[in-house]
Amino acid sequence: MDPAAALSAIKFNSEGLVPAIAQQHDSGEVLMMAWMNREAVGETLKSGRVCYYSRSRKALWRKGETSGQPQTLKSFLIDCDGDTILLKVDQKGVACHTGHRDCFFTEVGPEGLTEISPVVIPPTELYGK
Amino acid sequence: MDPAAALSAIKFNSEGLVPAIAQQHDSGEVLMMAWMNREAVGETLKSGRVCYYSRSRKALWRKGETSGQPQTLKSFLIDCDGDTILLKVDQKGVACHTGHRDCFFTEVGPEGLTEISPVVIPPTELYGK
Repeated sequence: MDPAAALSAIKFNSEGLVPAIAQQHDSGEVLMMAWMNREAVGETLKSGRVCYYSRSRKALWRKGETSGQPQTLKSFLIDCDGDTILLKVDQKGVACHTGHRDCFFTEVGPEGLTEISPVVIPPTELYGK
Repeated sequence: MDPAAALSAIKFNSEGLVPAIAQQHDSGEVLMMAWMNREAVGETLKSGRVCYYSRSRKALWRKGETSGQPQTLKSFLIDCDGDTILLKVDQKGVACHTGHRDCFFTEVGPEGLTEISPVVIPPTELYGK
């Protein structure tokens, strides 16, 4: 894919970042939201493997590098304002560091919060001891 | 739904905002991403009609108030870190101010950007003259 066209269309915020939503390409599940900088966008488009920018570690975050649960890029979409990205991906295993398939497993109900999906892979398995 | 439980679980950023992804509840389409403040979260959960916070207007943005294209809330999910919201909604008409069904109609391809979905309702119809 064409990193130059993408980079010219994206409006990065004052910190040089843009939010990126990852969606499972076939099932439509929204897996997670994370951030990208210019370098992460470029690497993702060139490699076809999703790379974010970790705000806590202040470094590129090649999804799956530690957990073994990478995301393969299927398509890369930019929103009407150029300030949000939608990544259609193929998620191997689980997207969430908690071991849930996706990060949105907490639902607000009439009587507080409910966990609506199970842990698929325990974090101890994802990250060792 | 329970605004107090939601508000205690959400980590708002330094500007008092949290990103909210809107997804069509039945088809799974990711429609848009916008921002909410505490008041927008509270109003959305109480009314069942999605209300964002407009960063440009610095005011509550009751989706559909001007365009006639509201979002009815079906479920309200909070991610593992409490810093992103996923709204499952029923979108009447179109989500995007351009008149496209969703905001993610620009795809990055091998030779630049392509528009992958049509305008469903012309903006002149959405917003008058």
